[in-house]
Amino acid sequence: MIDIIPPCEVKGIHHIGIAVSDINLAAQYYQTTFNIKEAPTLENHEFSVLGIFLPVNGVHLELLQGTNPDSLISKFIAEKGEGIHHLCFEVDDIQKSIDTLLARDIKLLDTTPRQGFIGPVAFLHPKSSRGVLVELAQHE
Amino acid sequence: MIDIIPPCEVKGIHHIGIAVSDINLAAQYYQTTFNIKEAPTLENHEFSVLGIFLPVNGVHLELLQGTNPDSLISKFIAEKGEGIHHLCFEVDDIQKSIDTLLARDIKLLDTTPRQGFIGPVAFLHPKSSRGVLVELAQHE
Repeated sequence: MIDIIPPCEVKGIHHIGIAVSDINLAAQYYQTTFNIKEAPTLENHEFSVLGIFLPVNGVHLELLQGTNPDSLISKFIAEKGEGIHHLCFEVDDIQKSIDTLLARDIKLLDTTPRQGFIGPVAFLHPKSSRGVLVELAQHE
Repeated sequence: MIDIIPPCEVKGIHHIGIAVSDINLAAQYYQTTFNIKEAPTLENHEFSVLGIFLPVNGVHLELLQGTNPDSLISKFIAEKGEGIHHLCFEVDDIQKSIDTLLARDIKLLDTTPRQGFIGPVAFLHPKSSRGVLVELAQHE
């Protein structure tokens, strides 16, 4: 008898990550053009990025600026220019989600969680999701 | 006295547009991996695309496949590969939104609405939004 592997349950889309070269200018653009509320600038040393989560009706635009040239965000911009970088699903239990995806033969960039802005996170390999970089995040 | 131009009010993020080469395979991936509900395949002749709106807690993943090589989605994939294509804000009044953005000196690809899947839509020039292709859509 074959065991059926359950899906990775997601609670919703937490944010759309956007790589920007100047986080203050980018935040100002979205805030003033679309009347989006201000949000604080955060720093994450694990990923070498500054981040601002602009709230849009329950979802967020996560503006990301690299803090050094080795940051993945800086490298993304150097290669492709500014633009949408990834999509983040919120999950209840990051380790359970990782284990479920591994059992389903989905390739992951992180098989153990890393510390993101809102809690532990893990990225799927873009090849798993047909070119889309998908992040899973557990809100602390 | 200088008139202050109001912002373009948005109701929320309606969808994240994702360019895919095989819409059925892509839909199956998201549905089975993340337990996302099925949705019908739509066709839009104006944009030469097939579309599936996968609902994720009030937001949608809009999978898009070009129906001919001249479709913008086919061209996007030919140039950059499959991946996230655009971000769509829902607005109450598309023409008012266009007029507001023009008054704010924001560059638009569509200064008159085009017929999208869910109603009239207009795209901003990606340069306006620092590399992000932003769509506005009025839900009919």
